Amino acid sequence: MFRVLICWVMIVFAHNVNAASVSATSPNGKLKVLVTDEKHPSYRVFYQDRLVLDWSKLGMTFASHHPLTDGFTIKSNTKRTSDSEWQQPWGEHQVIRDHHNQVTIDFQHPRQSANRYQVEFKLFNDGMGFRYRVPAQTGLEGNIHITNELTEFRSADFKTATAWWIPARGWNRYEYVYNTTSFKDIDRVHTPFTYRATDGLHVSIHEAALVDYAGMTLDLRRDGRLKADLTPWSDGVLVKKNGAFTTPWRTIQVSPSATGLVNSTLILNLNEPNTLGNVDWVKPGKYIGIWWGMHIGENTWGSGDKHGATTSEVKRYMDFAHKYGFNGVLVEGWNHGWDGDWYFNGDVFNFTKPYDDFDIEAISAHGANLGVELIGHHETSGNVTNYRQQMDDAFALYQDNGVTQVKTGYVADAGQIKRIDENGIVRHEWHDGQFMVNEYLHNIITAAKYGISINTHEPIKDTGLRRTYPNWITREGARGMEFNAWGSPPNPPEHTAILPFTRLLSGPMDFTPGIFDMGFKGLDANSDRPQTTLAKQLALYTVIYSPLQMAADLPRNYEANLAAFQFIRDVPVDWEKSKALSGEVGDYIVMARKDKHSSQWFVGGLTDENARVVNLDLDFLTNNTRYKATIYKDGNNAQWETNPYDLIIENKLVSPSDTLTVKMAESGGFAIKFSPL
Amino acid sequence: MFRVLICWVMIVFAHNVNAASVSATSPNGKLKVLVTDEKHPSYRVFYQDRLVLDWSKLGMTFASHHPLTDGFTIKSNTKRTSDSEWQQPWGEHQVIRDHHNQVTIDFQHPRQSANRYQVEFKLFNDGMGFRYRVPAQTGLEGNIHITNELTEFRSADFKTATAWWIPARGWNRYEYVYNTTSFKDIDRVHTPFTYRATDGLHVSIHEAALVDYAGMTLDLRRDGRLKADLTPWSDGVLVKKNGAFTTPWRTIQVSPSATGLVNSTLILNLNEPNTLGNVDWVKPGKYIGIWWGMHIGENTWGSGDKHGATTSEVKRYMDFAHKYGFNGVLVEGWNHGWDGDWYFNGDVFNFTKPYDDFDIEAISAHGANLGVELIGHHETSGNVTNYRQQMDDAFALYQDNGVTQVKTGYVADAGQIKRIDENGIVRHEWHDGQFMVNEYLHNIITAAKYGISINTHEPIKDTGLRRTYPNWITREGARGMEFNAWGSPPNPPEHTAILPFTRLLSGPMDFTPGIFDMGFKGLDANSDRPQTTLAKQLALYTVIYSPLQMAADLPRNYEANLAAFQFIRDVPVDWEKSKALSGEVGDYIVMARKDKHSSQWFVGGLTDENARVVNLDLDFLTNNTRYKATIYKDGNNAQWETNPYDLIIENKLVSPSDTLTVKMAESGGFAIKFSPL
Repeated sequence: MFRVLICWVMIVFAHNVNAASVSATSPNGKLKVLVTDEKHPSYRVFYQDRLVLDWSKLGMTFASHHPLTDGFTIKSNTKRTSDSEWQQPWGEHQVIRDHHNQVTIDFQHPRQSANRYQVEFKLFNDGMGFRYRVPAQTGLEGNIHITNELTEFRSADFKTATAWWIPARGWNRYEYVYNTTSFKDIDRVHTPFTYRATDGLHVSIHEAALVDYAGMTLDLRRDGRLKADLTPWSDGVLVKKNGAFTTPWRTIQVSPSATGLVNSTLILNLNEPNTLGNVDWVKPGKYIGIWWGMHIGENTWGSGDKHGATTSEVKRYMDFAHKYGFNGVLVEGWNHGWDGDWYFNGDVFNFTKPYDDFDIEAISAHGANLGVELIGHHETSGNVTNYRQQMDDAFALYQDNGVTQVKTGYVADAGQIKRIDENGIVRHEWHDGQFMVNEYLHNIITAAKYGISINTHEPIKDTGLRRTYPNWITREGARGMEFNAWGSPPNPPEHTAILPFTRLLSGPMDFTPGIFDMGFKGLDANSDRPQTTLAKQLALYTVIYSPLQMAADLPRNYEANLAAFQFIRDVPVDWEKSKALSGEVGDYIVMARKDKHSSQWFVGGLTDENARVVNLDLDFLTNNTRYKATIYKDGNNAQWETNPYDLIIENKLVSPSDTLTVKMAESGGFAIKFSPL
Repeated sequence: MFRVLICWVMIVFAHNVNAASVSATSPNGKLKVLVTDEKHPSYRVFYQDRLVLDWSKLGMTFASHHPLTDGFTIKSNTKRTSDSEWQQPWGEHQVIRDHHNQVTIDFQHPRQSANRYQVEFKLFNDGMGFRYRVPAQTGLEGNIHITNELTEFRSADFKTATAWWIPARGWNRYEYVYNTTSFKDIDRVHTPFTYRATDGLHVSIHEAALVDYAGMTLDLRRDGRLKADLTPWSDGVLVKKNGAFTTPWRTIQVSPSATGLVNSTLILNLNEPNTLGNVDWVKPGKYIGIWWGMHIGENTWGSGDKHGATTSEVKRYMDFAHKYGFNGVLVEGWNHGWDGDWYFNGDVFNFTKPYDDFDIEAISAHGANLGVELIGHHETSGNVTNYRQQMDDAFALYQDNGVTQVKTGYVADAGQIKRIDENGIVRHEWHDGQFMVNEYLHNIITAAKYGISINTHEPIKDTGLRRTYPNWITREGARGMEFNAWGSPPNPPEHTAILPFTRLLSGPMDFTPGIFDMGFKGLDANSDRPQTTLAKQLALYTVIYSPLQMAADLPRNYEANLAAFQFIRDVPVDWEKSKALSGEVGDYIVMARKDKHSSQWFVGGLTDENARVVNLDLDFLTNNTRYKATIYKDGNNAQWETNPYDLIIENKLVSPSDTLTVKMAESGGFAIKFSPL
């Protein structure tokens, strides 16, 4: 028995006359937050006077200190407005405007100790963030163990909204097929968590600047309360602190359209500026790799007859890279450790001992002659103690051989990261707990000392730290192309029509697009294969932002279709500006991006399992300029299951006032290069 | 990248030649367990040589001691067989046979400390259980904090089986509409967790004898591994121990039929015998209550014009109970605390201070004259510190007034049990964490000192402790009738066709059946109302086992239909034996039970939203006896939405060799009393 009485509570609640409340709005006045100390410290969010989040709790509790929960009231608040611009060293936008209103609320408790904390809100036109600031104070001495973060996001739309999500705290990290369900049917979910209300309002909840804290997942409670569910340490503690601390930003992106989410810069704006100084050594680029051959079984990571990472094979790839204009060659399976039981034990990898058939010096010299870099690889198999012990030596070896980019891997099951603690006891940690949040960042900071940029696979989710650490250049963190090699099921047609509105809101993804031969296990729909047309493979280069972009297929498959390959050769990876032109979550998307180093524009569009016609207003192009549009699009008979290779390449002269009509096949797409005349 | 390499692991695994393994079977030889120390300590389960659970890990880890995980090998094992019978003081069976084979396996580690533990397996014909025994030893001194129990149940059928489940660690405790999904689509689930393989094998996973340990929920990992996911303390620790300890039994019921699960006595057989000595003071019985009036809004728990718990109203109920043969009258809302903001704060209840209009002495005296007991009520609203401080006084007051049964309530949201810790800090605990497991049992043991039996609402799930503490007489712990008053949605027609194969496998449930007036908010399908026919309401008394069984409706509604009410008056609550005759999970069930104190048999059957005809072989009746069968069944035009009250009552003379054919309407049922001639 519990339900009837709730009404009474609300009545009492409404009659509390001593409560204080504070409000703030975004610069355009559309987004509004209301903070109260009635009953509990709580907040409420409106968009154009429409309720988005109803009263949602704030606060946290500790293992052995007084909690920051009930009994706190608003003592004072401070408001300020800020409007500035900042530059990205690389990115989807060269310049980002940071225009926001800020309110910092001081909560206090009548007791004599552990009686103060702040919540800082920043409201932008594209969303808002808030974070806790807990100052050093009497009653909060010593080791502070957070046991519960009370933060809630209580959606006004949870009964009727549609949600896109992947489960949290399961066996995998983030590599799941996305679920599309009623909001009310979601599980414990990872962020970014995106939903669409019946009136078309789109909301995405995530976090920014996740440093020295546990990753936040969301657990659905009644009345649509998504409760912060921090991923614990192996000893059950959520977060370990000592002294004053500040939490990551809890973020809420709000937009009347799906594309509004994609065009948001909220996450980056809530991160701290670059702390690395000059980062000219961080170089966006395109690469190929000794990689896909292993996934489809032509090669092995381990030694033997089919070993992929041989000196001769790497040189062959470098020659190909040089011929077609790629910056680097990723080589996996080059070091000792791959031959045994590495997946579960993971203490076998030696990061400075190449296989005998991999002559790193000869390879580096060969690359240097061609202007092609070796891209390094560190698979830890989740044994982070083993990796940490060798980390400096490993980066030094690469630095000595001219390597400036390293892909890392942490492929253990979720919850199975292996570390040896201070007592010599083996501990198993989550990829998204505080321990690993710190471990990943330690890797980035260490790499920076050696002039190396990191592409993290099996990473902690992105929260915009590339702004602060520009050498954290890209990462995986969702189902990428590899799942089409052995995923059973492979990524469904809608997968890349969901990613831009979910995973990609957090930052770049090394998806490794560009598979031209889809028939490596047969071309029928039930095989492991990319469930796309060839045109859609090309579209991925513009749709999915990553400053490192792979051409993932084997060289021979590109040489068999140089006409289509030309687009991959042409498309840049660093942009002056980017804009989602149209799209709906899980259905389709059209992205336009302007090259940072030329006057060219590129557009990519892709669709889910449904064929679709898009009318492309070209008004994003530079005024009073005529362009040659080179269009790569699905042929009239293209269809992903039966006829994926039907591709039309055509040239058109266009102006910004024109409209282009493009038909996408089932799981098809298109890619366009606009060159000014 | 992670998938391709798994094959290698399996090969290495198969080549380990030093491993030891131990097996054991059930007395009938059908159920078999195989335990190995290859790779990890693990076990495997077969039923008639069919794989049920594939290799599933064993072990646990601690916060500051060496883990009991990898590196342990089988040192020795001890087997024994046991066949005995024991008596229940009350129950669904008077006598229970305990026939099992046992094997205790000693695991050891080569290191010098924290190097020993045992796993004890008991195999019965209806299922198996196992538990860990961790002895006191060097290296396991001091406070032992369990941070992970590795136990897995790796189903061989997870890709294709159908599962029935409710989510764990959500806002509610156990009061959810059951989900019916593919096994592979389950969430983190509560136990009993029941699934059916495509070949009809039924499996239910649960635990027995949950004492001084955290409740176990199950989290689905890849390859169908259900991982034990213990509910944590508020500080994140899962279980706190000091010195040697033994875990609860992890149980696996296996049956080729759904009814086989219902007829299992595994859970009780794995509990310890009665420790309370003579329990003649524990009295099964039927009751009415001042209760439903509050749920449908005619009365209030709090004081005022509509206050339900007034002296005159209780006397009127007692008169009714006396007239129609009920043992007691439950009275909720009798004590101070209900008028304010009790649901969230919950420190307002005074368990010894009746409202002014509730004269407990006069009421007790009135009841004593009539042979009707007052049934007590303690709503804690989850503030267990407040309750504990008053507990002895509260029971003493009731004892002084002749009360021998008390219903308790812990209605806070899940995770929101409020306690004050040893430092005066407010802590919020889960209903199914170790703290509350101990708190509920403390309540039972305290009540026993005052000769009081407890009916726990918002309880910890049942794990068979009624055997050890027979005054823990029944409990709620699933969606009961109250949800039909305000559940929105109310319990769907299939609800009571799922409960017998899930929740009720764990023990009795105070469902509070018998609503005769379903039109209190209108009779259409979208109202809050019982979604059943009247005959199905009668069926619930035999289908759902509870030694305390309520006639939940208002007296006036029974007096308006005394013919149907006669069945509720006649049906007993204590049984010599019970047997599920037929049924399928979520579809229907037919239960037969023999009265413990007469030669009468009772049968109840009910169906989900589909009408259904059952042919009832009467061979369960006592041989060579003829019976008068009084049959309460759906009328020809009965249908739950449009015509729930169409009821036929008829008498037939029958013999054990007869077959009765009964038609159940959509969400209908039937109830039969068999009286020997």
